[in-house]
Amino acid sequence: MEGALSGQGAAAEPLERLRERLAELADLEAVCGLLGWDQETMMPPAGVRARADQLATLERLLHERLTAAEVGDWLERCNGAGPAGVEEQPTPAGEPDVPADRDAALVRVARRDRDKALRVPVSLRAELARARSLGQHAWARARAADDFAGFLPQLRELVALTRRYIACFPDVEHPYDAVLDDYEPGMRTEQVRSVFAQLRDGLAPLIAAIERSRAEGLAPERLSGPFPADAQRRLVRDVLIGVGFHPSRSRLDESQHPFSTTVALEDQRITARFTEDSLEALFAGLHEFGHALYDSQIDRALERTPLCAGVSSSVHESQSRLWENMVGRSRAGAAYLLPRLRDAFPGRFDDIDESGLYRAVNVVERSLIRVQADEVTYALHIILRFELELELFEGSLEPDDLADAWRERARSYLGVEVPDDARGVLQDIHWSFGGFGYFPTYALGNMIAAQLWACAREDHPDLEERIAAGDFAPLREWLGGRLHRYGRMFTPAQTLRRAIGADLDAKPFLDYLWDKHSDIHGLRRD
Amino acid sequence: MEGALSGQGAAAEPLERLRERLAELADLEAVCGLLGWDQETMMPPAGVRARADQLATLERLLHERLTAAEVGDWLERCNGAGPAGVEEQPTPAGEPDVPADRDAALVRVARRDRDKALRVPVSLRAELARARSLGQHAWARARAADDFAGFLPQLRELVALTRRYIACFPDVEHPYDAVLDDYEPGMRTEQVRSVFAQLRDGLAPLIAAIERSRAEGLAPERLSGPFPADAQRRLVRDVLIGVGFHPSRSRLDESQHPFSTTVALEDQRITARFTEDSLEALFAGLHEFGHALYDSQIDRALERTPLCAGVSSSVHESQSRLWENMVGRSRAGAAYLLPRLRDAFPGRFDDIDESGLYRAVNVVERSLIRVQADEVTYALHIILRFELELELFEGSLEPDDLADAWRERARSYLGVEVPDDARGVLQDIHWSFGGFGYFPTYALGNMIAAQLWACAREDHPDLEERIAAGDFAPLREWLGGRLHRYGRMFTPAQTLRRAIGADLDAKPFLDYLWDKHSDIHGLRRD
Repeated sequence: MEGALSGQGAAAEPLERLRERLAELADLEAVCGLLGWDQETMMPPAGVRARADQLATLERLLHERLTAAEVGDWLERCNGAGPAGVEEQPTPAGEPDVPADRDAALVRVARRDRDKALRVPVSLRAELARARSLGQHAWARARAADDFAGFLPQLRELVALTRRYIACFPDVEHPYDAVLDDYEPGMRTEQVRSVFAQLRDGLAPLIAAIERSRAEGLAPERLSGPFPADAQRRLVRDVLIGVGFHPSRSRLDESQHPFSTTVALEDQRITARFTEDSLEALFAGLHEFGHALYDSQIDRALERTPLCAGVSSSVHESQSRLWENMVGRSRAGAAYLLPRLRDAFPGRFDDIDESGLYRAVNVVERSLIRVQADEVTYALHIILRFELELELFEGSLEPDDLADAWRERARSYLGVEVPDDARGVLQDIHWSFGGFGYFPTYALGNMIAAQLWACAREDHPDLEERIAAGDFAPLREWLGGRLHRYGRMFTPAQTLRRAIGADLDAKPFLDYLWDKHSDIHGLRRD
Repeated sequence: MEGALSGQGAAAEPLERLRERLAELADLEAVCGLLGWDQETMMPPAGVRARADQLATLERLLHERLTAAEVGDWLERCNGAGPAGVEEQPTPAGEPDVPADRDAALVRVARRDRDKALRVPVSLRAELARARSLGQHAWARARAADDFAGFLPQLRELVALTRRYIACFPDVEHPYDAVLDDYEPGMRTEQVRSVFAQLRDGLAPLIAAIERSRAEGLAPERLSGPFPADAQRRLVRDVLIGVGFHPSRSRLDESQHPFSTTVALEDQRITARFTEDSLEALFAGLHEFGHALYDSQIDRALERTPLCAGVSSSVHESQSRLWENMVGRSRAGAAYLLPRLRDAFPGRFDDIDESGLYRAVNVVERSLIRVQADEVTYALHIILRFELELELFEGSLEPDDLADAWRERARSYLGVEVPDDARGVLQDIHWSFGGFGYFPTYALGNMIAAQLWACAREDHPDLEERIAAGDFAPLREWLGGRLHRYGRMFTPAQTLRRAIGADLDAKPFLDYLWDKHSDIHGLRRD
């Protein structure tokens, strides 16, 4: 592949122009990220009106300058020069050379992004943007007032517009493929359905076994607060620096909801929210660190290109969940965290040992709220949402019936009675901004995390000892070399195969959960 | 004027397109401001390389989209529809109607900004941008090492490029007019020269009289530290909130050098630097507040247009100096500040009364460093720089001779011996980024501040009593109604005439200084 494009005189110039334009777009994307970060962490409240204008302007420019006719011309003149080869060639045995293969991938990804942008009429994009903005306001009010009917007009509009969006992609196998592809390039609904079935079937006996153990009084209890916020602030910063957060190229701030933003490879920003009644911020901090670490370890040769990003939402989520759960909620993680918790909260952790801490941060309980769910039952919350989304876009469910459908499904999947819509159908923000297609990526991320984790442990048999001792470099480097550095160089499926030599599979996740909870709950897997 | 443009069918469409483009450019300018603010206050150090790319991309887009052919077309089709009238019509007796007159001013200012942008070849802009960036690095190193020769190559390049920049404006009266106009639209070098002569002649006897008073032991002593930084932080925030800083639409942060940035009318950000040995941060805080107040009180109808900004650098500087000096260093200001200082530094201000504080913050002393100079001798630092800049661009002085010229001029104007170039020619950053033409605006700002102050006191005879009592609303509102709300609706000269019914004049500033220092030093004006 090396020089496949740059060596072809005629193609060199359009490629050069394409690179320049893509660098410009990458800069504008990064600036949008910064504006969003600033809005949530720093901006004075009254700045919100102007900020919406600033973001709308940047987004319009991004769209215009990606879809401009000259970009199509450059892409066409780069055609046949190898880009398709990336899709076709088998995974090479050796390490791919990121800089050498870069331009072919650049053309492939730019063509994909541009084609998708061109498919959707500007007028529909504008309607969607407006509906998203109104939707979020209506949702926040409706949730506060437990008033699903108050959100319905916006929800109907968002579903109708999303159906029109889907209709812009008539060549999909399943209508849901069109929205799924925005987060999981190339993934098909059928594949998600199949892996979720595997997951659901595998979780049922595990949950039943854990519940038997609870009935027998063998299940652990949660840690209870208060954990003073200032001590948590210091703890989270110290723990993050311990795992690899670099203050010279990262920031940790506070916001209403934790998130991470990449302003540049060397400018990663994560946020936390500190509530005194739990240690949620500690695990949320590890979660956001996982996201930031991914983006920070992308190969420098990909900077200022559309390849310089996570390859898909689920792979990104796998990184956050790996650090939150496989590291933070492991036995080794407990060994690392316990002395730090004792320092942060003098006296509070004297009566608990590593094993006790490990058990306490792994309580399993059927619950109403997705974001508070444990590792085991979490997937059920996702499967519920995924199925409702599928029905909405297959046309067998209408927004008006969504609250009731939610209640039924919560009863049958989670075994909980939904007492009000605020803790039911209104609990998540995603639908209010039209984020249909996003939910599955959370559960897929958990599965991918377990696949990576199993593979990393195989490569580093002492990985957990190193973690217990506070040495996270082997894990960071393994993730960097196997996954992070490639950014969007390959498709998500290729990326996964390259990292772990396998396709998406629920089994390693189920094995991981069985191992952990056999240990914690004294289960026996039948 | 009302509807002069919008009523003319044919002109309506190009005007609408022009408005949209100008709104886009205003958004991009605001975003550049935010990026700059973030860089100085929040950005992790390693983010600097990517930030330079992001800013360069935004600046290139700003230039391309202002100078694009279609903008010229829209402007031409808006032609003759009134815009020139703004220049020609006499100042109306009544209050102008900002929204009604807006479009005519919009066309005038957009045409001016675009014509200037088009005059300078893209290649020269690129060379200047590169030289500025290299210049600042070289200057920082050279100043730290007291090595003027180390900065000379960059300085020569910057002067040479600025001479080429000036040559892009062959129609100017004096070569310096071309750079001055970037900060003071429409002002002529001859006018600055004349008002500076008036200033210099007026300051000489005042400085002599103050020095006689010092020799007689009648001059005050400075306050000496330490003033603990945390107490200063609280003090500055409280004082700023007292004068009108709104936390819901402003931020106060810390940075290496204090500055203010306008992200939006309702998103003003100022910074401070706290050093324990002086109360500099308090007066610097009032200074930056003055800048922020100006931008925050511009009429909302001008938002997202190029009219939504200060009318010139000197008028902007007049606002910061008015709050720093006319308010902060006045007798009334001392009355307001003293109880707050006593609260902030318990015991430290028990032995000083309002009059003592007033005297202590108005010490006059010939000095080496401009940014530390008092109100009286400050202008001499500026006149020195202005004259050296004039000679550089008239061609009678070369960069190689600048350090020696500085020494001579410091001896004759300031009466000080320059011990090293770090405290001489290398002390300011301005030349290192090619900011020739900027220095005069500082001294002009002081004069304008005094003109506004005299006028405000005439309109509000109780202004100082109100200030002493902590009521700053009358001053804020007077400034808002007379000056701030117009933004760039009128030329700087028109704006000044509209605010105070007079042209730029050194006399009110000299009167103000004589009054203050007669009071403090027991002088008699001959």
